[in-house]
This record gives sequence, structure tokens and C-alpha cells, in this order.
Amino acid sequence: MTPPPPSNGGAAQPASDDNNNDHLVQSEDPEHPANLIPSLCAKFWTLGWVTGTGGGASIRDDDLVYIAPSGVQKELMKSSDIYVLSLAAQAKSLDRRSRVYLRSPPQYKPSQCTPLFLAAFTKRGAGCCIHTHSHWAVLVTLILEQQNSREFRINNIEQIKGFGNGFQKSGNLGYHDTLVIPVIENTAHEEDLTEFLEEAMDKYPDTYAVLVRRHGVYVWGDNVHKAKTQCESLDYLFQLAVEMKQLGLPWISEVEPTVPRRQD
Amino acid sequence: MTPPPPSNGGAAQPASDDNNNDHLVQSEDPEHPANLIPSLCAKFWTLGWVTGTGGGASIRDDDLVYIAPSGVQKELMKSSDIYVLSLAAQAKSLDRRSRVYLRSPPQYKPSQCTPLFLAAFTKRGAGCCIHTHSHWAVLVTLILEQQNSREFRINNIEQIKGFGNGFQKSGNLGYHDTLVIPVIENTAHEEDLTEFLEEAMDKYPDTYAVLVRRHGVYVWGDNVHKAKTQCESLDYLFQLAVEMKQLGLPWISEVEPTVPRRQD
Amino acid sequence: MTPPPPSNGGAAQPASDDNNNDHLVQSEDPEHPANLIPSLCAKFWTLGWVTGTGGGASIRDDDLVYIAPSGVQKELMKSSDIYVLSLAAQAKSLDRRSRVYLRSPPQYKPSQCTPLFLAAFTKRGAGCCIHTHSHWAVLVTLILEQQNSREFRINNIEQIKGFGNGFQKSGNLGYHDTLVIPVIENTAHEEDLTEFLEEAMDKYPDTYAVLVRRHGVYVWGDNVHKAKTQCESLDYLFQLAVEMKQLGLPWISEVEPTVPRRQD
Amino acid sequence: MTPPPPSNGGAAQPASDDNNNDHLVQSEDPEHPANLIPSLCAKFWTLGWVTGTGGGASIRDDDLVYIAPSGVQKELMKSSDIYVLSLAAQAKSLDRRSRVYLRSPPQYKPSQCTPLFLAAFTKRGAGCCIHTHSHWAVLVTLILEQQNSREFRINNIEQIKGFGNGFQKSGNLGYHDTLVIPVIENTAHEEDLTEFLEEAMDKYPDTYAVLVRRHGVYVWGDNVHKAKTQCESLDYLFQLAVEMKQLGLPWISEVEPTVPRRQD
Repeated sequence: MTPPPPSNGGAAQPASDDNNNDHLVQSEDPEHPANLIPSLCAKFWTLGWVTGTGGGASIRDDDLVYIAPSGVQKELMKSSDIYVLSLAAQAKSLDRRSRVYLRSPPQYKPSQCTPLFLAAFTKRGAGCCIHTHSHWAVLVTLILEQQNSREFRINNIEQIKGFGNGFQKSGNLGYHDTLVIPVIENTAHEEDLTEFLEEAMDKYPDTYAVLVRRHGVYVWGDNVHKAKTQCESLDYLFQLAVEMKQLGLPWISEVEPTVPRRQD
Repeated sequence: MTPPPPSNGGAAQPASDDNNNDHLVQSEDPEHPANLIPSLCAKFWTLGWVTGTGGGASIRDDDLVYIAPSGVQKELMKSSDIYVLSLAAQAKSLDRRSRVYLRSPPQYKPSQCTPLFLAAFTKRGAGCCIHTHSHWAVLVTLILEQQNSREFRINNIEQIKGFGNGFQKSGNLGYHDTLVIPVIENTAHEEDLTEFLEEAMDKYPDTYAVLVRRHGVYVWGDNVHKAKTQCESLDYLFQLAVEMKQLGLPWISEVEPTVPRRQD
Repeated sequence: MTPPPPSNGGAAQPASDDNNNDHLVQSEDPEHPANLIPSLCAKFWTLGWVTGTGGGASIRDDDLVYIAPSGVQKELMKSSDIYVLSLAAQAKSLDRRSRVYLRSPPQYKPSQCTPLFLAAFTKRGAGCCIHTHSHWAVLVTLILEQQNSREFRINNIEQIKGFGNGFQKSGNLGYHDTLVIPVIENTAHEEDLTEFLEEAMDKYPDTYAVLVRRHGVYVWGDNVHKAKTQCESLDYLFQLAVEMKQLGLPWISEVEPTVPRRQD
Repeated sequence: MTPPPPSNGGAAQPASDDNNNDHLVQSEDPEHPANLIPSLCAKFWTLGWVTGTGGGASIRDDDLVYIAPSGVQKELMKSSDIYVLSLAAQAKSLDRRSRVYLRSPPQYKPSQCTPLFLAAFTKRGAGCCIHTHSHWAVLVTLILEQQNSREFRINNIEQIKGFGNGFQKSGNLGYHDTLVIPVIENTAHEEDLTEFLEEAMDKYPDTYAVLVRRHGVYVWGDNVHKAKTQCESLDYLFQLAVEMKQLGLPWISEVEPTVPRRQD
């Protein structure tokens, strides 16, 4: 798929109707990003991740970034609702907040999550980024707030293996490893989270997720499969962590490794 | 859509069969209110909002009000089950409880929620009103009852942004704003709630929802999209609030605003 | 629908294949009991009511009783899995445990719930009886066991209105009424519950449900609609009751009635 | 179905493309194992059992074993993703870890669960084995860990009847019986669990399930129906057990049997 040149010379305004590159979101392929974002978001709605138009997802296909608009009901989204922009064109822009859209849906506003998704694509080479308002994620940040903590830490749970070892590293975390997810404080305007998200990426170079206090979580991966697997695994761990807290069980434990005795 | 004249001169009885305006509920358009109410209610049933025929939803399209009947299984409703009435005709009626139905389903009784939905339409110009029996809403009213409180208050949660600033105001609440939802006491007969709902609307002119103690919640919005978004966001916040209570976390907090340092 | 004469003269064995009255379970009508039981059970499976082949439902259409077999996966049931028997023929049988089946599925055994469903049909004239293993029901019986109690009592909750006033009475319970559901002790063999269920029906003539300790609940109604509405309402109340217990809120309360001031 | 001879002489590498026995996973029959594993896993995903590519299921049809690959999204699996191997061929192999695949999907790696599924098939003659990461299972192992216990024990709950009496025994457990499920410690590598699972099978010859600490559960049965029924019943009991713990209710109780008085 060769991206066409930006149609509106760098301005943030939607392109004129007859030059809106609607072909970028038109495909019969269910795996095309413009079809996949709606079907993923419908699934996420049933999981309680994108309730009340909150949360969302973005997919990058080489230089093209597909992104849902602001304020849309996530389980009802259509491919025609999708924004498309060129990643390279954003980097060239002097003004970070003036974004070039190759294709804009006529009736919507761009999502405030856009610069956060872009951070995952530019700083981590991610192929997909998911943002949820999962109440398990929010509860974890509230529990950590009472402990004055800016890190979620859990170890010795099998599902931890659902996470990669880190940026440009091969392999996944092991059962005994400690998964560490940084927490950043929420800002009044979602776009203002960007610098803090980027800071967290710098401080935790191997993390694939950042929790946002009293808000939710951003999770990314090299591709849609990995981002979704990591997001599901993390939500599972957040739910488990809240239930462990209710039962008085600690998140970090000392577990003696069990070694196989048999020599095959 | 031009509403036909009322067919039965102000009486509450259903119109005769050959003059029942069935065309008002017959449409191939899934967005037509007579199709949308059943599909919304089926979705709400899976969320536990309209269990056991409780709860419901009403949509206003200009002067026409579409409303589900009493005692119907909400996930099985059909467009032919829908009542239609003229909002203007109700206002002209001397007797508030004698309602003019343009179209009545043959085998049902009108919903006791009708005057409460009408209050949202007449006093707030709402385009849609949703009533749920969500157990999260009921639990919140029970927790507040123990505190002798008639207000649900929560702040510093991102999902609060899902609410509009108030009647005839533009924009939405911010992250640090306190969302305030009044609680009214339940009455033996649902219709009798109307005056207390209207009082709450007068006292809290900017609210889009009223909790009913030991019963549920009424939520409205300028249109279906906004009513549903606000209802989902509120149910999310009620669930979060109950879980925060179980974890000993307060609903109102002091959170220092996080200010972006970067000057773009 | 005219029931054919019993084909096997009172024996409990299935009828021979060429005389098995398969037409009794063959219909294109989704409302036919042989189609409705599978679709209801599939829905109940998603609610966690009939997990692991537990629970079930039976429908009576005049003299004909339709009933699911033992040990079938409830979300996968087909109309061809359904037993049919004549209610009148059971009453005439001298041996209560020798039941006359008009139609039997070839590969199954009759459900142990059969005599309990029949009790609802014969003693209460019910048109439908639902049996769930809902863990909310089980938890309520466990909480009551610790209080040495054989009655679930709750009042001042709107959803109580989902219940009828009682056998051969018109109208429904009111908001301030106390819903009382008797609890019977579980027996090693489900059929042995029958006499205790019947005793509870005699002692609580107006109840539409009986809880079974550490087991689940039986709920019935004059027809499918009423049985399902009452079963959903009860499960809602059981869930609420467990959550109230976890929050330290009492199930029985003194609530001052709120009286409307306006004279319309 | 006659299995073809192994196509690659005992090596673990996938067969060459033109000899990959794809016909083994191609069938129009929804009950064919290659179709049933994907539909079961899709259902299990909605239950939270196979979140984030965790967990899985395997079916044995005579000598042929069908098994899902590693790291696949369980609700999106297709029949073409399925591995097939000959049970007899594994037993003949000198090296336990070098497995003979009759058919391999081109782009995947074999599941680390494979030897654990094979243990259920060879040591217990199971026809199906299910592995879940259900958080109820994990929470039960965490609660037991605090009690230094390696056994989950529960009695006097009706759903216990969902379990068979044991290997090569007829009939099911009774209401008053104590269900005992052994817990093994988790290992860093899932394959290394095999010897401990086999040990638990030897020590608890009648169990149909083994819990894995901080990981999940393996459940099997003589066929798909029994494995699924036992897995659902166990997950129900794990959920109930966690909720009982939260309410301070014990898992083991003394319950006086209730004996029927009526002599039929």
C-alpha cells in the first residue's frame, strides 16, 4: 500500500471532500486496519474497556496510521469513521499539535489520544496501540496511590509470560520475572499526557504499557496480535491484583523455583 | 416526519385498530426510534440494566415520543410493541395522568415510567431518556443512605469527562470537576416519582441524571448518542464507586493538577 | 394441540422408535415449547444459571409437559432432546416414580428434576418452571445457614415488584412489601427434594420460588414470561443481597413511605 | 478414521508442505476435532479461561491427537491452525521431547501444553483435556498457598455431582462427597510440569483435574462432553470458593443428611 502525498499541505483541517482519500479506509479485507479497528473496538466494548466512548485503538501499517475519532461509540464504529495520517509527515511538522490527516471522516473531531498513540509508533516502532478505561486498571492505580507508588509490580503469575522482554529484545518474560508497569499522573487534557508517557518510556525502556492514574492504561505491541495479547494479559493481571488485594494476598512474593527432577 | 393528529381525542385508551397509526412504528431504518429502542434495550439487557422487565428507554423525535410498554421482556421487544405519543398534546391536557397515545400496541399497558421520561423531554429538551435498575446504581444509593446523603459525588476520574456541562451549556465536565448526581427517595408507585424527579431537576439544573433510592437511575441526553454515553459512563462510575468502597478508597479526593512542562 | 394417548401403558421406558411421537417436538414455531426450552437454556447458560449441565427448565402446555433430559449441555440442547409427558397420566399412576413419557429422546435419561417441575405444575398450575444453580442463590443459602435461617427476606427494593402477589391472586408485590422465599435443605438425590418442595409450597402458599440449600433455586410462574421475569428478578435480588452483605448493609430495612404531595 | 503413517520419521520438524496431511484437519462436520477445538476455545475465551493466548484444549480421537498451537489468539483460531499427532508414535519415541507430528500448521510452534495433554490421554485414557488460566483457579491456589496446602477440598455443594467417581469407575460423586483436587507448584517452563502432573495423577488416581499454583488448571474427561462439564463445574466451584472466602464461609462443612420421609 503506497500512501498518497498529504493532500492539505500540513494543515490540521480535514481535506476537502473530493480529495479525502476515502480509498484508504475502503477494503473488503477484515484484516485491513480500517476494518480491524472497528471489530477490535466492538470486542473491547464487551470487555468494559471502552465504555461510554472512552478508550480506543490505533494501528500503524508502515507509514500509515489509522485511528478512531473522538467521542464515537466504540462498539458501533465503522471503517468510514477512521482517520488516516502519515507518520513521517508528523515528524516533519514544526508544530507538534498541528497534524496532517491524509483522510478525515466528515463529521468527527480527531481523538485526543492521537499524540499518545503516535508516541508508541515513533519511540517504540509499535504496530498497534490500545487505550482502555478498564476499571481494573483504574482500581490498581487507586490502590497504588494509597501507597504513594508509581509502579505496578507483580511476579510469579503464569500470565506474566504474555509480555515480551522489551523493546528490540527477543523472547518473553518468565514466570518468576517481575512485571513492572509505570504509573503516570493524569492531566486535565489528554494530549498533555504525551510528554509524561514519553518520559515513562525513556525511564522504563522495556515496558509495553503505561498506567494513567484514575484514568486507564496504554498498551502497545509490535503488531495487532502482540498489542492485544499484552493488553488482555495485563487486564487479567489487574483484575487478579484487585481480587488479591481484597483477599489480603500480596502482589510480590518469594517463590522457590520448582526444578524438574527427570532427565529426559 | 409529520405527526398525524391524535386519533382518540385525549382519552388514555388505545385507538381503535383501524386507526392505530401503526405506520409510526414501521420502518426499515435501524435508526428509526421504533427499531432503535428494541435494539438498545436488548443491549442493555446484556449489561444487567433491564433485568426482569425492569427499566427501559424512550426516544423523542421532534414532537413524537416513542416508549416501550410496561412489563415486557426488554431483550425480546419488537417495534410493534412501541407506544407513540405527541409531546405537545400532553402539555395541553388538563389532567396530567390522562395521556394521548397516537399509537398503542394492542396487548400492553403503558409504562409507569412515561411521566418521568416526559419530564426529561419537556423540562430539559432531551432527545432520549434511559432508566436502568443497574445493581451498581442501587448499591450506590444504599451506601449513600447509610451516610444520610442525597447526593452521589465523585471527582478526579477520567470517565467524568463523559458528561456534558449541563442544560443549554456547551462542552463537557473536566477531569478535576466533581460530578454530582442527586438521589430522590423511591415511591410506592413509579408515576409518583415524577414530582420529585422534577424537583431534583430544578435544584440541580445541570444534572443529566437522577438516582432513585433502592430502585435505579434515570439518565438523559440531547440525543440517543449522548444519553447512552452518559448512562454507560455513569454505570461505570457507580461500579467503580462500589469497588472503591469495598477497598476503603474515598470517592472525593484532593489531587494536585499535573501541568505540562513542554511549550509546543 | 391435542395430546395423543400414552403410547406405552404407564411404563417408564421410552416408547419404541416407530411410536415415539416425535411430532410432539417438531415445529417451525420458535415459541413452541420444544424450541423455547433450548433457546431459553442457551440464554440461561450465558447467565451462569445452568453451568456444567446443572439446572434446567420445563414448560407445560395444557396437559403436555416438555422437559429437558438429564446431563445435557444446556447451551447446546436441541428440540429433539426434549421429553414429553402427559400431566393427567402422572396423576393416575399409582407409583409416583414410574412416569409415563409420550415422547423420549433416544439416548438420554429423564431429568431428576422432573418430579419437582411436576409439583409446580400440579400444585400451582404453573405453565413454566426454571431451576438454576446460580451461585448467587447458593451464596444466599450459605449466608442464611450461618444465621440458622430457612427464609430469605428482603424489602424496600424496586425489583421486588417483579413478583406476583401469589397463587390465584391478581397483581404484584409492592415496593415496601417483604419478599419471602423459603429455603429447604438439599437431599442426596434430587428427586427426594420433591416432598420438601411440596411442604414449602403448602407452608408458603403464595411463594413462586423455593431455594435449595447449597444447590440453587426453583422458580415458577403461570407462563414462560412470568416464570422468566420472576427468575431474573430473583437472581438480581440474590446478587444484590450478597453484595449488600459484603458491604455490611441489611436486607430488611425500615423505610418511611414517600407520599406524593401533588394533587393531579 | 485411519491415521496415516508418520510422514517425517520421528523428527519434531513439520512435514514438508506437500506431505502435511492437511486432510486431517479438513471437515465440514462441526463435531470434527479440528472444528470443535476452535469453537470450544472461542466459547472459553468469553468465559475468561484463555485470555491473552493462555490456556487451550486438546481432543483425542482414537490414536489421533488434535492440539492448538502455541501463542494463538484462542477466540480467533481456525481448523487450519491445528496440530495432529499419533499417540502410539509418541510412546515409541525414545526421546520424550521429540514429538512426531502428522500434520503441522505452517506458521506456528507446538504448544508447551502438549506433554501435559498427552499425560491425560496416555495415563487416563482421556478423550479431551482443557487447560484454563481462569483467575478463579489462580485465586484458589493463592488462598491455599497461604494455608500451606496442596489440596483444594470442598463438600456439600450440589455442583460436585458434575464429577465422575474416578478413573475406570462408573457413576458420579454425590452431594455429600468431598471433591479433592491436588495442587502442583508451577515450573518456569510449562513442559516441566509434566512429571509433577503425572505424579499427582498417581497419588490421586481418581481425580479429573490438577490445579497449578499461580497458573491455572488442567481438567480432562473421557470425551469432550465430560471434560467440558467437569471444567465448567470446577470453575463454578472455584468461583464459589473465592466468594465463600470473601464472606468468611468455610469450604468444608458438616451437613446432616436430609432423608426423605415418604415411602413411595
